[in-house]
Amino acid sequence: MKALVYHGPGQKLWEDKPKPTLIHPTDAIVKITKTTICGTDLHILKGDVATVEPGRILGHEGVGVIEETGLSVSSFRKGDHVLISCITSCGRCSYCRKGMYSHCENGGWILGNTIDGTQAEYVRIPYADTSLYPIPSGMDEEALVMLSDIFPTGFECGVLNGEVHPGDTVAIVGAGPIGLASLLTAQFFSPAKIIMIDPDANRLEIAKEFGATDVINNRTVDVMQRIQLLTEEKGVDVAIEAVGIPATFGICQDIIAPGGRIANVGVHGKSAELHLESLWSKNITIRTRLVDTVTTSMLLKTVQAEKLQPSQLITHRFALSDIISAYDTFSRAAETRSLKVLLTNS
Amino acid sequence: MKALVYHGPGQKLWEDKPKPTLIHPTDAIVKITKTTICGTDLHILKGDVATVEPGRILGHEGVGVIEETGLSVSSFRKGDHVLISCITSCGRCSYCRKGMYSHCENGGWILGNTIDGTQAEYVRIPYADTSLYPIPSGMDEEALVMLSDIFPTGFECGVLNGEVHPGDTVAIVGAGPIGLASLLTAQFFSPAKIIMIDPDANRLEIAKEFGATDVINNRTVDVMQRIQLLTEEKGVDVAIEAVGIPATFGICQDIIAPGGRIANVGVHGKSAELHLESLWSKNITIRTRLVDTVTTSMLLKTVQAEKLQPSQLITHRFALSDIISAYDTFSRAAETRSLKVLLTNS
Amino acid sequence: MKALVYHGPGQKLWEDKPKPTLIHPTDAIVKITKTTICGTDLHILKGDVATVEPGRILGHEGVGVIEETGLSVSSFRKGDHVLISCITSCGRCSYCRKGMYSHCENGGWILGNTIDGTQAEYVRIPYADTSLYPIPSGMDEEALVMLSDIFPTGFECGVLNGEVHPGDTVAIVGAGPIGLASLLTAQFFSPAKIIMIDPDANRLEIAKEFGATDVINNRTVDVMQRIQLLTEEKGVDVAIEAVGIPATFGICQDIIAPGGRIANVGVHGKSAELHLESLWSKNITIRTRLVDTVTTSMLLKTVQAEKLQPSQLITHRFALSDIISAYDTFSRAAETRSLKVLLTNS
Amino acid sequence: MKALVYHGPGQKLWEDKPKPTLIHPTDAIVKITKTTICGTDLHILKGDVATVEPGRILGHEGVGVIEETGLSVSSFRKGDHVLISCITSCGRCSYCRKGMYSHCENGGWILGNTIDGTQAEYVRIPYADTSLYPIPSGMDEEALVMLSDIFPTGFECGVLNGEVHPGDTVAIVGAGPIGLASLLTAQFFSPAKIIMIDPDANRLEIAKEFGATDVINNRTVDVMQRIQLLTEEKGVDVAIEAVGIPATFGICQDIIAPGGRIANVGVHGKSAELHLESLWSKNITIRTRLVDTVTTSMLLKTVQAEKLQPSQLITHRFALSDIISAYDTFSRAAETRSLKVLLTNS
Repeated sequence: MKALVYHGPGQKLWEDKPKPTLIHPTDAIVKITKTTICGTDLHILKGDVATVEPGRILGHEGVGVIEETGLSVSSFRKGDHVLISCITSCGRCSYCRKGMYSHCENGGWILGNTIDGTQAEYVRIPYADTSLYPIPSGMDEEALVMLSDIFPTGFECGVLNGEVHPGDTVAIVGAGPIGLASLLTAQFFSPAKIIMIDPDANRLEIAKEFGATDVINNRTVDVMQRIQLLTEEKGVDVAIEAVGIPATFGICQDIIAPGGRIANVGVHGKSAELHLESLWSKNITIRTRLVDTVTTSMLLKTVQAEKLQPSQLITHRFALSDIISAYDTFSRAAETRSLKVLLTNS
Repeated sequence: MKALVYHGPGQKLWEDKPKPTLIHPTDAIVKITKTTICGTDLHILKGDVATVEPGRILGHEGVGVIEETGLSVSSFRKGDHVLISCITSCGRCSYCRKGMYSHCENGGWILGNTIDGTQAEYVRIPYADTSLYPIPSGMDEEALVMLSDIFPTGFECGVLNGEVHPGDTVAIVGAGPIGLASLLTAQFFSPAKIIMIDPDANRLEIAKEFGATDVINNRTVDVMQRIQLLTEEKGVDVAIEAVGIPATFGICQDIIAPGGRIANVGVHGKSAELHLESLWSKNITIRTRLVDTVTTSMLLKTVQAEKLQPSQLITHRFALSDIISAYDTFSRAAETRSLKVLLTNS
Repeated sequence: MKALVYHGPGQKLWEDKPKPTLIHPTDAIVKITKTTICGTDLHILKGDVATVEPGRILGHEGVGVIEETGLSVSSFRKGDHVLISCITSCGRCSYCRKGMYSHCENGGWILGNTIDGTQAEYVRIPYADTSLYPIPSGMDEEALVMLSDIFPTGFECGVLNGEVHPGDTVAIVGAGPIGLASLLTAQFFSPAKIIMIDPDANRLEIAKEFGATDVINNRTVDVMQRIQLLTEEKGVDVAIEAVGIPATFGICQDIIAPGGRIANVGVHGKSAELHLESLWSKNITIRTRLVDTVTTSMLLKTVQAEKLQPSQLITHRFALSDIISAYDTFSRAAETRSLKVLLTNS
Repeated sequence: MKALVYHGPGQKLWEDKPKPTLIHPTDAIVKITKTTICGTDLHILKGDVATVEPGRILGHEGVGVIEETGLSVSSFRKGDHVLISCITSCGRCSYCRKGMYSHCENGGWILGNTIDGTQAEYVRIPYADTSLYPIPSGMDEEALVMLSDIFPTGFECGVLNGEVHPGDTVAIVGAGPIGLASLLTAQFFSPAKIIMIDPDANRLEIAKEFGATDVINNRTVDVMQRIQLLTEEKGVDVAIEAVGIPATFGICQDIIAPGGRIANVGVHGKSAELHLESLWSKNITIRTRLVDTVTTSMLLKTVQAEKLQPSQLITHRFALSDIISAYDTFSRAAETRSLKVLLTNS
């Protein structure tokens, strides 16, 4: 089969690889029909993710069709349409038993990381019973690729960890795909205001279309001053960090109201300064999270109920075999105005 | 009357001051029977708390007897025994209505800060109906002075913010009075282990008597190594910071398990480094809090039920008129082995 | 002034009464600008509410303008536009301190019950600071009358007590004004399905316009069978009882899924059968509640943010002086297709 | 092997049965070392549990040693000491994924019900990875048999569902083994008062030894009057029903305070009257639950930490081969003063 293979920093090839086979009785082999590229894949390609070794097939998102199942897989059979979770969950370790699949002792984020991933014609999925989700018939596959990672991440790490309530004022720092996923799912809880903060005018425009009530271009506007104005000097109830650098985490600290919640979604490469000298008495909560994908079934229901249109994030479409071009488009996001690129294996 | 008055950094006098009088219809005048000294009072005397102006009577803890009440005070009358909360709550602003009295728009921490405090023979208490608590007859006044500040603080900022559950492993960094208050109230929730970390051998000894299952002297022992051993390499479920410096906040980050909660109790004078480069994916929660004293009634019940013996923290007793000596003893805590000093106005 | 006075079962008169005056320093006198009639007022007129004595001015909903304030009222002054809560809260008793204003030891539901109410040109509001809400300038007074009682009730007793989550299936039994208020506010949490059950075709039609995804006419359709179909035999996650009779409470028990929540909103005159023989093992939660109006400020924000249009419930408008006709229209709801009637004092 | 077999109402025999063998790759065969008898077993023997067919080996509690494991069992191997959960959990269905193992689509309460149980020398445990718990070395097996069912039930259905908080007043109606398990685990949360209500003087005596602060013999004392006295006319914060008949459920309704929680633990054979005519406005919560055994790991930790001594409930000990006598003793509990009987397979 063909697959996108990492060959060390800056090196990737669309090349022939052996088709995966069952290793454990809990495995399934899935034929990929759609997949996509994640910002994390770009990090890997920069050589930033030490766990990924050369020769690895990348990708941790996708939908497909069951090709083969191990002996003890009971929830799926050949031919079933499935959504692949970016997080593999064994369903039996203590972390899985408390819904923290991200820290599964036998899984977690392993696809396209420590085992071969989804940017390929076939993929082996360990613990298939608890790492795949059935796709109800009639649902749009394209939309569902967005439920492998980006929507659970925006929702769990941003919205749930930020405890968004009806009537709240929410700020989201970073209008990239993940910030926009938080924006779309924050609306499940009817906040009064959602303020999107980003330096890219195009993305702020999209944020408005996606439901932001206010936008702040932090390249040209004094964020603190504007937030004071928008919140009657109180600050925001929820600040969602969706970038992953000290400066944006700093903005969250500046604008948070007493009693507020800071939800960190961004992947950070270095430490940030925590202003305990002022925050110690502000009764705030800061939460971090690697997505657990515990809300995947719930998100599927909201898609079915048309409360969420995940395909809104898809800006470009490619054949899977054209994945090198897709990477190029996705990696030049500011220029190409890309959010998520969809890859179809036909 | 006599009172302990702040006269600028390093300057305090036990001197004559006019007896306070009612200003607002919601005020009460309380004759102090017992009071104590807080670590915060020492900070004020160093000149660290900018809001405290020379001439201010210090103190925000105490019990006493109602001397006089304003026209609209309905819950108390002359002669009632009362516990004074360190936090003044108007009961009507939006913060008070959601139980965040610490940020009361008309109160908060004002006693011995922006208005005269309790280290005096009499004190004026604003919003008496919602800032005083009736002392059930027969209860030990001495014990209750400890419910003005230190026990609600240890419990709300440490134990509740740390979400201590039965079976949890809890670490408390700092075995001063406030850390010990967290230790005593953490036991309300039956954690499996409470590990106390401090460089003072005497305080660790006390911690053991007070229920710590393990102690670590971080002057002589490698904390991280010891925690790994005690927790089967998992880290602690709850880390309570009860010192207020970057190093101890750093310890909390080092030892916290995935999914764990860091509760900050310490008063910080400067920022700390937050290791988002490792914590971003550890699903942790960090909470800060200025005590709200929303649990005062509940704590009173636990004292009545003998689930808590607050007087355990009292090591020294003085006449109120001897408060200068009391400050001396309290400020040399390592040497005098003092925890809380009790002052009686007779 | 003129007021609507109860004179025993079946007897009411629009008659002259003395204008109320301040009694306590915490009181305010409010000139009513808009008020409405509640189903409870009809119960009172039937003689069903023993606490209401002849001579009482009815009504517990309304908006108006502050005419005069007692000495200790600090949040309001003459001329302020205010929303009157149906629940009087002293803000100082133990129930108020924990947000259970409905059981306030000095208040609770007293307006138009044990003290004179709002169906009058003026009303005395005890504990004004904590029982009135400021109306932000520019907001529609008409809409806000609906926030005195019906929306907090539908939301707190129905939606919050039912713990509606995104993706849930919710059934509401009873499409009267209160059921419709639950329907409108349940949408704050983006449930996948909201099924409205009622025997009145007109009200079901309105329910559909208001966002019900499915309706069941329980006069003509087998509810159980239809729910099984709509929920893949699972039952509903949330059942909201908005009628107040044993039969409708029975429906809730029949249709609830394992793990589901039954929220009782209806006012019951007699006991109901609880099917513990099947429910004991179904892991369900049943909650009852007299509205606390703790969400009034939050609801105001959702109205400002246009997430809620409370005036949707208003079907008829009258001059306050024409209140007798308004009662007539409201009491013949099936015939007049009335939901809420609005009374204006001009 | 030998096993205790149900042969229709009133009929049971200790007889030869084939030793169980692996059926599915997720199965394990466990050699029973200790087991016990549950009140439910007595119900089965009366013919009250329709799902149990003649020929069935009874029993759903026990500890033992792994004899053999299916191909996909990864957490256990031959020779491991294990605790058997009374609830079988597949770990993969939607109920298991949300921690509601009681309603597992492939398991739930099946042992000694729809498949052969633990009152035998060997038992087949389906979904072994998620239905067995490893016993840490050095722990007392006897104590742990009590963690198969009775302690998780008393804790989850009684204490967690009743939301016991520090300082609360808790009433437990029924001082049988299950009520006593609630009593012992309620103390994890340091309530101020635990009032045990039962007509058996001996059991009330035991309740006092186990930590009840007050006891009421409802054969001789007016419960309502006594509760009023003990709670300053307020009623109890938590009422735990641990009997399973309308009368005791009625007591819970009578004594519950506004805002209180009623937790039903009892197995009910018929419906009860729910006094909505008074409860509708009392802001109460009623919860039912078939035990999920989600807290088994946590309970194991509290036993290791000596916060819980489960063997306190064991009053009688028998050889497994003497199970007929054990049943006799257990079924005449009032007379024999038995709580739990321990059966050892040696």
